[in-house]
Amino acid sequence: MNTLKELLHIDSVSGDESKMTDFLIRYTHKRMSSWKVTPEIYFGDDFHDCLLLKFGNPTTAVFAHIDTIGFMARYENQLVPVGGPEIIEGCYLVGMDSLGPIRCKLHTYEGAAYHDFGRPIERGTRLSFEQSIKIDEEFIEAAYLDNRLGIYNALQLCETLENGWVVFSTYEEHGGGSIPYLLNFIQKRAPIKQALISDITWVTDGVHHGEGVAISIRDKFIPRKKFLDKVIGLAEKSSIPFQLEVEAAGGSDGREIQFSPYAIDWCFIGAPEDHVHTPHEKVALKDLDAMIKMYQFLMKHL
Amino acid sequence: MNTLKELLHIDSVSGDESKMTDFLIRYTHKRMSSWKVTPEIYFGDDFHDCLLLKFGNPTTAVFAHIDTIGFMARYENQLVPVGGPEIIEGCYLVGMDSLGPIRCKLHTYEGAAYHDFGRPIERGTRLSFEQSIKIDEEFIEAAYLDNRLGIYNALQLCETLENGWVVFSTYEEHGGGSIPYLLNFIQKRAPIKQALISDITWVTDGVHHGEGVAISIRDKFIPRKKFLDKVIGLAEKSSIPFQLEVEAAGGSDGREIQFSPYAIDWCFIGAPEDHVHTPHEKVALKDLDAMIKMYQFLMKHL
Amino acid sequence: MNTLKELLHIDSVSGDESKMTDFLIRYTHKRMSSWKVTPEIYFGDDFHDCLLLKFGNPTTAVFAHIDTIGFMARYENQLVPVGGPEIIEGCYLVGMDSLGPIRCKLHTYEGAAYHDFGRPIERGTRLSFEQSIKIDEEFIEAAYLDNRLGIYNALQLCETLENGWVVFSTYEEHGGGSIPYLLNFIQKRAPIKQALISDITWVTDGVHHGEGVAISIRDKFIPRKKFLDKVIGLAEKSSIPFQLEVEAAGGSDGREIQFSPYAIDWCFIGAPEDHVHTPHEKVALKDLDAMIKMYQFLMKHL
Repeated sequence: MNTLKELLHIDSVSGDESKMTDFLIRYTHKRMSSWKVTPEIYFGDDFHDCLLLKFGNPTTAVFAHIDTIGFMARYENQLVPVGGPEIIEGCYLVGMDSLGPIRCKLHTYEGAAYHDFGRPIERGTRLSFEQSIKIDEEFIEAAYLDNRLGIYNALQLCETLENGWVVFSTYEEHGGGSIPYLLNFIQKRAPIKQALISDITWVTDGVHHGEGVAISIRDKFIPRKKFLDKVIGLAEKSSIPFQLEVEAAGGSDGREIQFSPYAIDWCFIGAPEDHVHTPHEKVALKDLDAMIKMYQFLMKHL
Repeated sequence: MNTLKELLHIDSVSGDESKMTDFLIRYTHKRMSSWKVTPEIYFGDDFHDCLLLKFGNPTTAVFAHIDTIGFMARYENQLVPVGGPEIIEGCYLVGMDSLGPIRCKLHTYEGAAYHDFGRPIERGTRLSFEQSIKIDEEFIEAAYLDNRLGIYNALQLCETLENGWVVFSTYEEHGGGSIPYLLNFIQKRAPIKQALISDITWVTDGVHHGEGVAISIRDKFIPRKKFLDKVIGLAEKSSIPFQLEVEAAGGSDGREIQFSPYAIDWCFIGAPEDHVHTPHEKVALKDLDAMIKMYQFLMKHL
Repeated sequence: MNTLKELLHIDSVSGDESKMTDFLIRYTHKRMSSWKVTPEIYFGDDFHDCLLLKFGNPTTAVFAHIDTIGFMARYENQLVPVGGPEIIEGCYLVGMDSLGPIRCKLHTYEGAAYHDFGRPIERGTRLSFEQSIKIDEEFIEAAYLDNRLGIYNALQLCETLENGWVVFSTYEEHGGGSIPYLLNFIQKRAPIKQALISDITWVTDGVHHGEGVAISIRDKFIPRKKFLDKVIGLAEKSSIPFQLEVEAAGGSDGREIQFSPYAIDWCFIGAPEDHVHTPHEKVALKDLDAMIKMYQFLMKHL
């Protein structure tokens, strides 16, 4: 869990993910000697702030987005959302501009968000929820479990993965934009036919804490039935707990795979969380464990 | 009309189009010996559930989407729309899950849709409108004329087509996603500069039953004027009845051609229907006839 | 300013930009002998109504859209917007159909737009705001400063540009669609890593007339912070007046660069205007001057 705690303390609001990328590059270099297969590593200017790991001969890729929602300072003391954060009166935000570190409270007025910091914050400064992690025997509660848990899952997968891409993408919370060039590269370097989206979904009236990882049959977009049948069939064989999700809304990196110029099947698989996009996202540890096991199983058998 | 009736009885809600693809592959193999030109046939895993027929040396492609709107079973007896079906109290839906065939009524409550089937329906099961076909001397009335008529038109075109792609696409009713990889393939295999969208449009205050096939000057998106002028100029020479459509909303596979990485002109051409996205879509046979003739004419002269 | 006045008198509502393209081709051929570097020129059927100029060895491209908002004649005397024009009771619209030139008034009724022309206007005919240009010592006021000023800026840049693409795009006001194939061509011919969007933005509570060109930190979409830092850092060194914009809405050709299959950084830089998308768009001449100087500076140092 130390890695997870480190991940939870790194700020990377959409468009400014480089600190997370740097962490993941260092982590990979430090850990990969103990991984079953040594991956090829791709990062740098040609990939903006993304990172790709190629293990063996891939047919499938796992995508985990490394950005988070947050806020951006506008004029006066106005705040503009980045992605879709909950606007919560009185919650604490943190960040940094050229004058130094920032810690302030969010206030709401007629639906809009403002900060109460003692001096002007430079235009365009990104702020994120102040982090506070609680872990007991059943649950983890923190800001940005979406998608630090998806990253953590991908890193756990690296330990034993023999064949597959593990891809850390940017911008997902704010409309996307990295998946198209990542896929362009992947399809030229070592093409895939299948993709799994390692991300966190919602507790709803049909998806509950503690009942396993959610395999999403649809959100706003709909993966192809043939591939869903294959994934669910394998999940049934795995004896790892899972639940099936059917939503009318919501999106993920899967959306950009759906609309890419390649015939790549995709499926969102992730633990469900409560209090989505608040400072207190909450996930059952059992579901996180099922998520990790399910990815290991599927990446072997898909 | 037997082919059309067969088409109307095949379920293929977006994301689950494989039964329609199988039909079209069988149909092509059975019929193509009598076609003027024998096409190259492309289908299979690299094309998901799409099918492409290449006749001669194409400069133009005809796109007909093979999916339909419908519903998906969520939790309890909730239904989530696939695409944009009309939610009609009391209409009959049919489908199939692992426990067997399903026939149920749709009920509405506060704008949401539910089913009344005697047992739970498995999560993610697709349901479609129960089919009922009425044909008299003037009109055809059935579920899913959109886009069974577009498919039928494309198949009629195959009889005499010398040069051109005929492409059967998926997912159109639910945001799209097949056109990008289809175009990627087409532009590598035998590139096009022009595309016609073989699909069904709306009867409105300016487009009426029986006044010919509609050539759409715009829907939500706007084709290039130069190409519209060329198409309309040819249509005028053809002496086939047509009417010009100008709408502010609605979309088609043309949208994904507009936003593709290729400079391909496109135009939507199709018969207008009443009772759009209900079980009782209605099209004038004269307009269907004009649609078929117009495609044959344009694909010769464009 | 004569070139600017000529630009302001050319109609090119989205989808019908060929008159503007023709002007720009003629202008380029006439002027380029006096330019510091002679560009390679790309236009014609493979680029629809776009035009690309390649100077030297580019790493950056400047994009200026050549289309404008406007209206399209529907049925009866209805008008459908092209892009997002302000619907202003009593404003004059002009255009042309096969029966001759059109000048009419726009009327509104229950939020919809109608024309009062003395005869029916042919379906699909494009109408634009009647042009009226006012220039004093401080301001220019006219229809379609967005984006005639962006074009003008790009043309001024051509005078001294040594390395870079100057690209004239279409369709921007109505959802886009030319950037994907332009980028596809650019990345094959002489690839770029950076893009500047030469377009006009809004006067708001944080961006004012006369305070310099606006460098946009975000609109609806968010460029990458690393690139923004680089651009703003250079702007600070330039001693050219600029102001930083932070908006939650609005879009530009930058959107399609963000979602392209290439890792290209982008930033919107343009003078702010008042009365956006009306016949009386208004820009401070000082801001236009700063825009021109900033592009010349950045294209040298980026």
